[in-house]
Amino acid sequence: MIIEDVQPAVDGGRFPAKRVVGEEVVVEADVFTDGHDLLGAEVLYRAEGEDQWSARPMALFDNDRWRGAFTVTTVGRYAFTVRGWVDHFATWRRGLEKKAAAGQDVAVDLLAGRALLEAAAGRARAADAGILADAAAALGSDAPLPERVARALDPELAALASGHPDRAGEATHGRELPVVVDRERARFSAWYEIFPRSTGPDGRHGTFRDLEALLPEIAGMGFDVLYLPPIHPIGRTHRKGPNNAPQAGPGDHGSPWAIGAEEGGHKAVHPDLGTLDDFRRLVRRADAHGLDVALDIAFQASPDHPYVKEHPSWFERRPDGTVQYAENPPKKYEDIYPFDFESEDWRALWEELKDVFVFWMRQGVRAFRVDNPHTKPFAFWEWLIGEVKREDPHVLFLSEAFTRPKVMYRLAKLGFTQSYTYFAWRNRRPEIEAYFEELTRTPVREFFRPNLWPNTPDILTEHLQEGGLPAFRARLVLAATLGASYGIYGPAFELGERRPRHAGSEEYLDSEKYQLRRWDRAAPHSLRSLIARVNQARREHPALQTDRGLHFHGGQNPELVCYSKATAGHADVVLVVVNLDPRRPQSGWVDLDEAELGLEPGQPFEVHDLLGGARYPWRGRANYVRLDPAQAPAHVFEVRRSPY
Amino acid sequence: MIIEDVQPAVDGGRFPAKRVVGEEVVVEADVFTDGHDLLGAEVLYRAEGEDQWSARPMALFDNDRWRGAFTVTTVGRYAFTVRGWVDHFATWRRGLEKKAAAGQDVAVDLLAGRALLEAAAGRARAADAGILADAAAALGSDAPLPERVARALDPELAALASGHPDRAGEATHGRELPVVVDRERARFSAWYEIFPRSTGPDGRHGTFRDLEALLPEIAGMGFDVLYLPPIHPIGRTHRKGPNNAPQAGPGDHGSPWAIGAEEGGHKAVHPDLGTLDDFRRLVRRADAHGLDVALDIAFQASPDHPYVKEHPSWFERRPDGTVQYAENPPKKYEDIYPFDFESEDWRALWEELKDVFVFWMRQGVRAFRVDNPHTKPFAFWEWLIGEVKREDPHVLFLSEAFTRPKVMYRLAKLGFTQSYTYFAWRNRRPEIEAYFEELTRTPVREFFRPNLWPNTPDILTEHLQEGGLPAFRARLVLAATLGASYGIYGPAFELGERRPRHAGSEEYLDSEKYQLRRWDRAAPHSLRSLIARVNQARREHPALQTDRGLHFHGGQNPELVCYSKATAGHADVVLVVVNLDPRRPQSGWVDLDEAELGLEPGQPFEVHDLLGGARYPWRGRANYVRLDPAQAPAHVFEVRRSPY
Repeated sequence: MIIEDVQPAVDGGRFPAKRVVGEEVVVEADVFTDGHDLLGAEVLYRAEGEDQWSARPMALFDNDRWRGAFTVTTVGRYAFTVRGWVDHFATWRRGLEKKAAAGQDVAVDLLAGRALLEAAAGRARAADAGILADAAAALGSDAPLPERVARALDPELAALASGHPDRAGEATHGRELPVVVDRERARFSAWYEIFPRSTGPDGRHGTFRDLEALLPEIAGMGFDVLYLPPIHPIGRTHRKGPNNAPQAGPGDHGSPWAIGAEEGGHKAVHPDLGTLDDFRRLVRRADAHGLDVALDIAFQASPDHPYVKEHPSWFERRPDGTVQYAENPPKKYEDIYPFDFESEDWRALWEELKDVFVFWMRQGVRAFRVDNPHTKPFAFWEWLIGEVKREDPHVLFLSEAFTRPKVMYRLAKLGFTQSYTYFAWRNRRPEIEAYFEELTRTPVREFFRPNLWPNTPDILTEHLQEGGLPAFRARLVLAATLGASYGIYGPAFELGERRPRHAGSEEYLDSEKYQLRRWDRAAPHSLRSLIARVNQARREHPALQTDRGLHFHGGQNPELVCYSKATAGHADVVLVVVNLDPRRPQSGWVDLDEAELGLEPGQPFEVHDLLGGARYPWRGRANYVRLDPAQAPAHVFEVRRSPY
Repeated sequence: MIIEDVQPAVDGGRFPAKRVVGEEVVVEADVFTDGHDLLGAEVLYRAEGEDQWSARPMALFDNDRWRGAFTVTTVGRYAFTVRGWVDHFATWRRGLEKKAAAGQDVAVDLLAGRALLEAAAGRARAADAGILADAAAALGSDAPLPERVARALDPELAALASGHPDRAGEATHGRELPVVVDRERARFSAWYEIFPRSTGPDGRHGTFRDLEALLPEIAGMGFDVLYLPPIHPIGRTHRKGPNNAPQAGPGDHGSPWAIGAEEGGHKAVHPDLGTLDDFRRLVRRADAHGLDVALDIAFQASPDHPYVKEHPSWFERRPDGTVQYAENPPKKYEDIYPFDFESEDWRALWEELKDVFVFWMRQGVRAFRVDNPHTKPFAFWEWLIGEVKREDPHVLFLSEAFTRPKVMYRLAKLGFTQSYTYFAWRNRRPEIEAYFEELTRTPVREFFRPNLWPNTPDILTEHLQEGGLPAFRARLVLAATLGASYGIYGPAFELGERRPRHAGSEEYLDSEKYQLRRWDRAAPHSLRSLIARVNQARREHPALQTDRGLHFHGGQNPELVCYSKATAGHADVVLVVVNLDPRRPQSGWVDLDEAELGLEPGQPFEVHDLLGGARYPWRGRANYVRLDPAQAPAHVFEVRRSPY
């Protein structure tokens, strides 16, 4: 018995596939054997800690490929495998049916069937055993042959006999395949990044209390994760000034990523933001608004970090005895010391870094955005995420890694819940289609959950710089509808901030990374209401809450990208058309794959724009669209199949 | 260090990839690590029995993907794996280069470089060690900085230092991947099937001696494997008559696949064919003509086989105590008893069946065609082929299994050298293109060597029945040029035998399976000379001797299929165009991918028809072809890039 190519399996089962609570795990496998016998197969599965396997039936659907499914109901890890066996009774029954139809003498065959049924009766319990034994006796009785054949071919008998197969010849796939099950927010989330220090009134340093005041507004826009850049004391040695100036002035606040000062390191809060109590209060208040607070974890130290004195062995030395600062030649980051993860004292370092996570989890944090994980050892992350999830499997990890694709994918396999992507730099239709086909149609989708960011404090793309507010609008709709998870670097995005530090740079002028900013959140050009509408559409439409079910439709105008998302059985279908050109109105006929929308060819349907409210009666493959970026760059349509 | 997706690997290394002696094994792997260090990588390989690994360098070619190669030189098994490491000196050198170019002070960096070179010197032997130590000293000397930088950046120094990397951080892929290396005929072979009993003059039963007389003719046509249906005594009980009549008459010869009679079983020769000595002589004479003799191994017994009495436990019983005959309900094959591979006495049965192979190997046979392998356990074949190859790794196994694709592929993975295919039923252009893309462009090509048969004694396709000789010609060219290995059921094919037993049947009327046939080998319509020309083209053109390098070209006429085969670097390029319509001349413009022919766009070239001898000057993508099936259904062109 061969049972192979069992899916979902990430790297043959070395890493878990990812699901959230309540989802189905659809399992497929090739199950076959030599010869022509009929087979049976089932999925075996159990949650971590359960002794017994549960079983779900599988059915043959194509060319020796079988399919079954089970539902995951608890956060944590599951394992599954596939079992197959020869269904001797079904095989015998198929032969009998053909022989009887050909008018052959089947008296001896019936005796073989009797033996099979007797054996099945021996394996069955009370009621079933009796029915099977009765049938066995009937097959071997003196009754006329046609009567016995009819009894033998009874479909109910077939089902009963197949339900008690001979386990002697069964085989189980050699590997138990892991599944990691997260809370629902792992799959569906809208992130809002904000610098707390810029939330103060009148230009003073903002505090956790100031941020608290913004919670209703942020939650009101429909976000569910509030992500804060590092909140720790900031180093003074080699502190950078505004616009990354090599020397900070006396009143400059420095970069939150230059972590650590006299006041403490990764487990301390910057005094100007408030106290640890204030932070805990913020987390509680945010939770009351349905918001997770996500902290940024940047494992590096300023020269003033207490670790530098207390654990000099955790840092590499240059040949002249000084501590090795971060560099990306010819760039130098003298305000930042990387940790030496391979130092003699690595065990203590790793434990301490784990303790950083645990510390913040104790303050109520259950989501972390990890800065530059690709510059730390893979083995460290696999160990750390495993340890943390043992403490609390509800914790989410977002991997910030705009690095080579195989490195990004590896980090996701190692345990990161969600990952940054190349979305910010995919602006043309073929780029968008190819990238999202890769993310949602290939095995990548089993382990890599994209989180789409049109901007971040590090990334102000040329497209946004040049396209202005119309580009921001279009990129918002793309991020929020292509991805079940997305995020924005908040105030800067809402207000269309797009001044680069210099021409050709992706850095912001007067970046919040190096200074406080005041944002006029009430400015009339704010995208706040559009963001709220988009997030509302996401909350109301399950199709937008998963990355499965994405399909790109055709159309001749290359500036118009058209795609749909649908839940199983097309219960919910959303159709999106975006004008990728921020400068000019674009129009044309989209070419719809009707089956992907749950439509029969030529069936009339109505599209209802969830952003603008308009409704259009559509029909067939070709439908006309015109989108003016000055007004609305996109349609996000609910597809209604029966007019109301 | 991550080293993964190492190729070639069949099912992750569970089964060997296949090569023949003298071929390169091109190895690819993803090699990467956290961070941005530069890496080095190499292929490690060894033949079975060698203690030491040999190494070949790998080079990065795309997106963390590395490639290297080694050549297999002996028949048997090899193993290979991939090793990677951080190239600290190259990483350091890259940083130094950027810093120096930016005009930074690199005095401390040079000290780091000195330390790296000193360490490399410590790992190197005599001459290299001295050069590295000298360079280390120079980097730390009092010489002016620019001079020391120039020395540090010397490319020869880089190569030398990289050649002695720090093995501390190296990693080796966790699995040794197997490769099985066969003799060349495993990849490139032309098989000729013939029933010896039909080779007698004047209608008498043919003998091995009669067949000997045909060797010059068969070898002269360019074949290199002479395949004989079973040559053993034939059972008398339930013997079938001509055209599969249920009852044989007294003079009927029966089916050679009903193996075994009083005269002996699988290790005996049919007395009417001659003696074992005669057979050995045939093998020797065939060998002198460059022909392997391939025997048919059909593991089943007639009711008269000595095994039935001597080893009753090797056969299954029906409930009435009789031996279970073969059946495919409602069809019964009462002249054939299958073996029970799972009987209590299976070990003795398996050993005896292995002994059948060994017996014929002792008579000089090194190629076997295995009948219906899919009705015997997979585990049996894996064990048997392993055992036989331990005796002689030169033995070839051709799997006859027109069964479900996954079963066919499994048999190939388990060790069969070559396999029958669905070629006979792929007659339209999209079918041919899709099937051969699957066989030659997907991972299937690593373990499945197709052997293409346009006909067999069991298969006279509707296409041949209806298309007549023109169809035979076209199918010959397709088989012999699409596949590096192909075969024909000889006299019937040469003479265009195409009368079915009845309309809609794929069986021959008066099939040689049940009776002797007389073939008029000298008939004027014989395809013998075309076959000889096709085989000659195969022998003269290395491009036709491998299944790699197949590419389908375009063209608007769906009846014209156009493909090329090319060796590495386009040293040899053959371009084939076949008219798939046996009834009408077809013409049209083929649309060539010039790059696949080794041509620059628009470059003129000459095509030289290896079958008809004509030459045409061609140029560019579009070239005109007209093929009349009544004359010649195909061009087999040699592509000559510079006119002579």
